[in-house]
Amino acid sequence: MEFLQRYKQYGSFIDEHLSTFIKRTIPRSLYEPANYILEAGGKRIRPVLVLCACEAVGGKKEDAVHAAAGLEILHNFTLIHDDIMDHAAARRGRPTVHTKWDASVAILAGDVLLGLAYRALLQSNTASIQELSSIFTEGVIEVCEGQAYDKEFETRRRVSLDEYLLMIRKKTGTMVAVAMEVGAILGNGSAGQRAALKSYGELVGEAFQVQDDLLDVVADEKQFGKAIGGDIVEGKKTFLLITALQRAKGEDKRLLQKLVQEGGVSKRKVDRIRRIFLSTGAVEAAEIQIANDIAKAKEQLKVLNDSESTHMLSWFADMLLSRKS
Amino acid sequence: MEFLQRYKQYGSFIDEHLSTFIKRTIPRSLYEPANYILEAGGKRIRPVLVLCACEAVGGKKEDAVHAAAGLEILHNFTLIHDDIMDHAAARRGRPTVHTKWDASVAILAGDVLLGLAYRALLQSNTASIQELSSIFTEGVIEVCEGQAYDKEFETRRRVSLDEYLLMIRKKTGTMVAVAMEVGAILGNGSAGQRAALKSYGELVGEAFQVQDDLLDVVADEKQFGKAIGGDIVEGKKTFLLITALQRAKGEDKRLLQKLVQEGGVSKRKVDRIRRIFLSTGAVEAAEIQIANDIAKAKEQLKVLNDSESTHMLSWFADMLLSRKS
Repeated sequence: MEFLQRYKQYGSFIDEHLSTFIKRTIPRSLYEPANYILEAGGKRIRPVLVLCACEAVGGKKEDAVHAAAGLEILHNFTLIHDDIMDHAAARRGRPTVHTKWDASVAILAGDVLLGLAYRALLQSNTASIQELSSIFTEGVIEVCEGQAYDKEFETRRRVSLDEYLLMIRKKTGTMVAVAMEVGAILGNGSAGQRAALKSYGELVGEAFQVQDDLLDVVADEKQFGKAIGGDIVEGKKTFLLITALQRAKGEDKRLLQKLVQEGGVSKRKVDRIRRIFLSTGAVEAAEIQIANDIAKAKEQLKVLNDSESTHMLSWFADMLLSRKS
Repeated sequence: MEFLQRYKQYGSFIDEHLSTFIKRTIPRSLYEPANYILEAGGKRIRPVLVLCACEAVGGKKEDAVHAAAGLEILHNFTLIHDDIMDHAAARRGRPTVHTKWDASVAILAGDVLLGLAYRALLQSNTASIQELSSIFTEGVIEVCEGQAYDKEFETRRRVSLDEYLLMIRKKTGTMVAVAMEVGAILGNGSAGQRAALKSYGELVGEAFQVQDDLLDVVADEKQFGKAIGGDIVEGKKTFLLITALQRAKGEDKRLLQKLVQEGGVSKRKVDRIRRIFLSTGAVEAAEIQIANDIAKAKEQLKVLNDSESTHMLSWFADMLLSRKS
């Protein structure tokens, strides 16, 4: 509970910084939607990790606040643009930007957020600014690659588990790894510490995404905050569907193949599919993948000095394992 | 003619650099459209100006090639996204990215180009990388602001000439100014030289945009390469329409107001509108604005040493005045 409180404190620290960051209000069609998404909250995972990584190598969180804000703003850029591409109507309980305004406004608001993310990052006071900016930039490019694969997979019949893992690493893992590495650089961490924290980020990011897939199947609907089985209804090629497709036989296999061919199923078939995910061991495979990732992530922390921040990173990894939403 | 040859040489130098820049080919849905737009050519104005600015303060163009590529890639990012927002079907004689693929592909290809633009810029070898990146970033933000104003103006009844000029400065002037300033920094120019070249860029960028408006009305259709009067048919609030609206009286004024209210006119009315642009002096006002901008831009070059590159910048400004397309 102590860690959770600290996590929330760090989140508020970021929120305060973000709330004073965008000073302009015009053109309104640009800054209203940009502020709208930044103010909507969210878990603030990436910026909190930047602060923790900085502290874990002996730095002060104040030295990393600009970069932390940059990571969060960058994340929101991806959300706005991904929501357009995915035709998503709601996000964090509110209409998405392209729904509340329109696609043009959403494209441009996303673009300016990417610019603002660099503005925040470049306020960092460090001799390593070129390296910092390059790491950030390679992250931007990889996130785009991840999203491109994600969209490509939607219309492909076959996606292997390796391809799926590559996609989520690029789409989610990379930016969490960037957050950790950027924090470590700003805290003047050693090369070994940086590499370990980066690796922690990749693993935690991957686990987070597989957990997302898993929660769609096994979560408690009330705690989850949205309907269970949404991915199944949409025919989304998740860790579970890909694994179940490899393992299922007979009638089960044909049903899953039909699901892929038709790009989804009706709601009343969700329970049948869930049972296949369980009986084929796909659910268990996902649980093992997550547990392994988390164990490996925590292993990385051993090269760091024993500190409150290191413990918090360890707690954070465990929290992902037990999260319900 | 000598200068034109040199301009083309510099353009080829940029093209060669760009052609080796994107090494990845997958995900195809990302890199095919990104390469498609970069390979389509274009005037390469911004990167050539980066090289000229660098040389004009005594630097070598090789030192500025990464930043020059960054500016050109950034420009192409704005083209892809603007074309989606403007529902433009063709660009440089080929289908636009969202027409050839779809809007999702175009959004993402634009995004990755912005990342690639930073990657190119950050390859610059300079102690001023933080300043360079910040200037570039403020340019990105201003371009977004300019495009937001442009879209807002489409649905507004009244736009003042000052508002219009603010919009084109942000949308076009800023990035040309950024090109000049970045080139001057990479050539190790003095603060005075940098300020002068930046100012040259702002003025030339503004003149370029007003000339664009003017060509839609007075160009020779064959040389222009597209139909004359396109802006009029679309009811676009150009320098000419805004000025003519201020000055016209009686029947002429009512016709222009109707054009704005209805968001355009039929083709057969284009000649009538052109005559109003001429009789109210709107065409002359645009010509004066351009001539003044160009004269002021050339004035800026006086703080520089007399060199081939300075002469080329002077020639370039004059070329804008006389361009037919």
